[in-house]
This record gives sequence, structure tokens and C-alpha cells, in this order.
Amino acid sequence: MQSTLPKIVPPTLEWIGDVAGHLRLIDQTLLPTEVRFRDCHDLPTVWEAIKSLRVRGAPAIGIAAAYGVVIGVRHPTDSRDSCIDLACEAVDYLATSRPTAVNLFWALERMKTRALELRDCKDGVEFKSELLAEARAIHDEDRQMCRAIGRYGAELLQDNWGLLTHCNAGGLATSEYGPALAVFYSAHDSGKRLRVFADETRPLLQGARLTAWELQQHGLNVTLICDSMAAKVMSEGRIQAVVVGADRIAANGDAANKIGTYGVAVLAAAHNIPFYVAAPSTTFDLSIASGDDIPIEERDPREITHAFGRETAPEGIKVYNPAFDVTPARLIRALITERGVIDPVTPAQISKVLG
Amino acid sequence: MQSTLPKIVPPTLEWIGDVAGHLRLIDQTLLPTEVRFRDCHDLPTVWEAIKSLRVRGAPAIGIAAAYGVVIGVRHPTDSRDSCIDLACEAVDYLATSRPTAVNLFWALERMKTRALELRDCKDGVEFKSELLAEARAIHDEDRQMCRAIGRYGAELLQDNWGLLTHCNAGGLATSEYGPALAVFYSAHDSGKRLRVFADETRPLLQGARLTAWELQQHGLNVTLICDSMAAKVMSEGRIQAVVVGADRIAANGDAANKIGTYGVAVLAAAHNIPFYVAAPSTTFDLSIASGDDIPIEERDPREITHAFGRETAPEGIKVYNPAFDVTPARLIRALITERGVIDPVTPAQISKVLG
Repeated sequence: MQSTLPKIVPPTLEWIGDVAGHLRLIDQTLLPTEVRFRDCHDLPTVWEAIKSLRVRGAPAIGIAAAYGVVIGVRHPTDSRDSCIDLACEAVDYLATSRPTAVNLFWALERMKTRALELRDCKDGVEFKSELLAEARAIHDEDRQMCRAIGRYGAELLQDNWGLLTHCNAGGLATSEYGPALAVFYSAHDSGKRLRVFADETRPLLQGARLTAWELQQHGLNVTLICDSMAAKVMSEGRIQAVVVGADRIAANGDAANKIGTYGVAVLAAAHNIPFYVAAPSTTFDLSIASGDDIPIEERDPREITHAFGRETAPEGIKVYNPAFDVTPARLIRALITERGVIDPVTPAQISKVLG
Repeated sequence: MQSTLPKIVPPTLEWIGDVAGHLRLIDQTLLPTEVRFRDCHDLPTVWEAIKSLRVRGAPAIGIAAAYGVVIGVRHPTDSRDSCIDLACEAVDYLATSRPTAVNLFWALERMKTRALELRDCKDGVEFKSELLAEARAIHDEDRQMCRAIGRYGAELLQDNWGLLTHCNAGGLATSEYGPALAVFYSAHDSGKRLRVFADETRPLLQGARLTAWELQQHGLNVTLICDSMAAKVMSEGRIQAVVVGADRIAANGDAANKIGTYGVAVLAAAHNIPFYVAAPSTTFDLSIASGDDIPIEERDPREITHAFGRETAPEGIKVYNPAFDVTPARLIRALITERGVIDPVTPAQISKVLG
């Protein structure tokens, strides 16, 4: 439907220059009040950017790390072997930045494999050039994947619809387009007029800080609400579809995502609003039978009691702060992947589309 | 069931001393990090306390204003007429503190009526003494009303239940016990072991700042959650009933309450959890046929974009910030009033119980 998708401005991250270039990324810790870029010319700067969440979102972390390995081979000499050593050292070093990030390890492993494949190349210059090509490939595959999700998802949306999303499964979590927000971007780019409501997403406000910002940057009509207002907006007839991302999807289609997603799904069902989950095929973990087996991380109570630096709850109060919840497959109208739309959400259909 | 209900410590407000005494109230703007009392010895201090939300919640404002009228008759002379003039001036002055607070006008009107009735009393000392008695009566009626709601509501709760509440319909909004939290206090005081989950209640965090604090003060087992976590807690089987307050109830039982309440009611229905609304009979507005006719105030976008003193959303973002939502009668298992429990929630049953 759409062919010349404009790039989201500014991009989450990009490689500046040629093989001797560097990685530039938006410092997401300063959003939404300040748009400042961080230029990473050396390995410790990349490591720190990942560690400190200046770049976040599984795919974006993976891409940043891949470019980080290229940066690690800072001064290519004529010795291929020393380049390989430098690349492997960079992989080991960057792996310590965020120990639980699956995409980080996946990307680093891929870069290491490629580095070891390059034993036969002419010299360090060719080595580094090939390594950069691999990082660019990871970057480009993410871009293509998000756009494919966007194209499939956009077909499900109609002109003049109101939409709701939760958290940030957007361009800032990936190279540029994101999984869930790609659906909105694609529909918007193809001329559909959308009104998007963004849940602020307590406790960490990814919706207010990131989703509202990037939708605004892209020129979409976006309205920020508190999580507790979604039900009212639905009851007013202002939402025709919900689209969210996922952190992990089980073989039966149960989807783990940011806390609050399950509640939105229940509310959508009660208002007869279709609820879509948009996620790349890599999000599926077919070794997990159902959502019951997805472990849910509990996070620091201070995210709730000391919101944004101020103490907003009594001293010593008990807190429950799960980071994710699981939306059962029965509440999901369809799963939108880069390989197609999974509808109905059944184990058989999942196997068929992802097959 | 319970006879000697302990007073909630500390009380929201109290009259200190005899007829020459003063009003002491908790400065709620400092909660939950600081418990500081504000002693109001003169009229401007009472006015400022109401204006600046140091005392909040419709019933509590009404009681504070009633005592304020007594304080307004600061120096009773032998002249009854000058006392009456002072009282009427105090009424007019205090009425300017929060122009939309219905209970404020109700209490002031009652104090004025009483002042005018006292034309025949002996002197200024007797006048002021009688006026104080009227303020104490307003205060005591609120206390009795909340305790009656608490007694009726407590019958609906069982030992070892998990409960959820939203916003603060508690002691801090009334003289000491509150409408919704009175149900928990009464059940707790009668020996039932409860586990209460308090929604933090964005945007103004009354749940985190006030409900969590007063339940903790009263010795209840309370856990603070974000609004977006209620659905997960319900799905885990940890909630056996929801109890909330109401700002206004229509003739058909539709109830307006703090934004987010309607969503909690939908979630409760989806999890087969009974949803109760506890409110005094004065909350009912039988001139309003249904919730559709209840006007909903929209509030300052900055409550969402500048949470907690820090800017947490992009510049110029559109915001929707309704202060209340309406829960339809069909989602309410029963209405708990000081005159009894209204079950089922139908116009006929409402008329029957409220007489």
C-alpha cells in the first residue's frame, strides 16, 4: 500500500560516516524535555549508553551493541587476527552492560560469528568493513521487520479511527519504526487519519515520555491520558482498536507485556473493541506452552513510592510492583508479525504463520 | 457488631478546648511524608486551610467551615446582634474559599440558620456556646453516619478477604472514618483480617498519599499498587471485593466517582468480584435520572504532564484529564449507605431504603 515510507525523525540510532565513523543515538534518558544526541566514538561510551538506558528497547539495544563491536575494532591494522581479538573482546565487554537483555546477546553472538568467519579476509580494513556491513544488516533487518509489521497492521485500521496504545513499543525501542507504533505510522503514512490515545504507563511513564513524544514527532494526532482513563475513553466510543507490543509470546498466544496491558485487554473486550498485539516473530517463545509459565519480574518499590524523585507514599508502605502481566490469547483479536497476521490466535495458526 | 470503635489516630480535624477554643486539623498537603497539625485560631487561617486543600473531602470541608463560623465570633460581647452579624460575615467570607464545594454551602447555611435562631439567647457567650454546639452536631452526625456505613458494609466482608479501593473515600475526607474506608475500619475493628490493596489513583495520587497512609495508621494490612496493576492483582485471585466512594449518585444508581473507578468496576465484573459503592444518603441526587446527566469536570493538563513537579510529557502534547467517571448501576453489586444496604441497585430499592 505504501512504498516511500518517510524515516522517523530523528532516528533512534544511526551510524555516522564510513567504516571509520561512529554511532549516534538519542539520549532517551533526557526525553521528552530535551532531544540530545550522544555520539559514541569508543567502546566505553556505547557500554555506558546501554547500561544507563540512554538506548533501550530490546531491538535497539541489539543494534547499538552490533555497532559497538565495530567501534571496538578501533584501529584496524594489517593483522586480521588482532582485529578478531578486538572484536571478541568488544563482544565480551558489551555483554556485561545489561545482563538480562536477550537481543543484546543475540546481536553480539551474531557479530562474533561473523568476526570468526572473516579469518580469510585481506586485512584489517576489509575486516572492519565487513563487520560494519553485518551491523548494518542487523539494523536494516530490524527496519524491514518493523515496516512489514506496520504494513500488515495498517490493513486492519480504518480511516478516522481512534486508537489506544500502552507503554512504548515504538521507534525508540527499535531502529526507527517499532512494532506496535509501526502499525500507526504505516496507516498514517498511507493517508489514514488516526486519533491515538497514549496511556502514560505508570510507574515509569514510557507512554508519556516516549510514545507521546515520538507520535508527536511523526505528526500523528496524539492525546495523553492516565492509565486509569482508558476505560472512560473507551466508553465514550472514541477507541476503535487497541494495539500494543509484547515482550514474550507463548505457544498458545498468551502475551506478556508491560504491566497494565492485561487490564486494557479486559476493558477492550468489555467494550467490544478489537485488541491487537504487534510483535516480531523473535518475540515468540514456542518452548513455553502458556502465559502461566512466563516468569514476571518484580521491580523496586521506589518506582511507585518515589515517583520522579519525590516521595509520594508513606514511609514503610508495602508495595506490589510487577513489571509485566500476561494477556490471555482469548482476549487478543490477532497477532501482527512481520510474517503476517495471526488470526485467530490459536497454536495451529501461530505454527502456520511462523512455520 | 462493634460497639467501642477506636477513634482513628490522628483525627482529620477536632475542636480543641471549650467555647474559646480553636480548630486543629491535619495539614493534608504535607501527607504522607509529614504529619503536621494546623491550629486555626482565626477566620483567615480557616479560609486558607480550605482554599489550599489543607483540609479536603466534602464532609471534612463542611465541618471545618462550621467550626470556622464559631471562630468568626471571636470576641462575644453582651450584644447578641453583633454576634449574629459576626457569624453571618464569617459565613459569607468562608463561602468564598471553595466556590464549588456543595457540603461547604450546606454547612454554612445550617450555621447561619442556627445563628439567626439564636436571636433570643441571653448574651454573646450563650450565643457562641450554642453555635459551637451546632458545629459539634454537624461533626458528630458525620461521625455517626460514617460509622453506620461502616457497620452495614462490614457485614458484607468476610475474614481473610483481599480488598481493593480507589482514591480516598476515607477518614481524611470526613471527620474520622470516611464512607468507603469505614467499611474496612469497621470490619478490621470487629476482628476480621483484611488485606487491602490501594490504587495510587493518578493523577493526584490520593490513594498513595492519603488512603495508604490512613490505612497504615489504623493498623490495616495495606499494599500500594499503580492503577494499571489492579487487573493483575484481581486475576491472581487476591481480591474478593472492591469498595469505593462516590461523589454523586443518580436516581437509577449510576455513580460518579474519581476517574478510574469505572475501569475498576469493569475489571471487577470480568473477574466476578463484587463491586460496592459506599456513600452517605446526601450523595444521592434523585433529581438526576442517570449518570449520563452528571457533568464531568475536566482538569488542568499539567496534573498529567507535570507530575510530581517534574515535566514528564513532551511540550505541547494534547491531554485529556477528566476528574471523574460514571460507573453504571449494572456494575454495582450494592450501594452501602448509613440507612442500610441498597441491593439490588434499582430505582425502586433506592427509594425504599432512602425513604
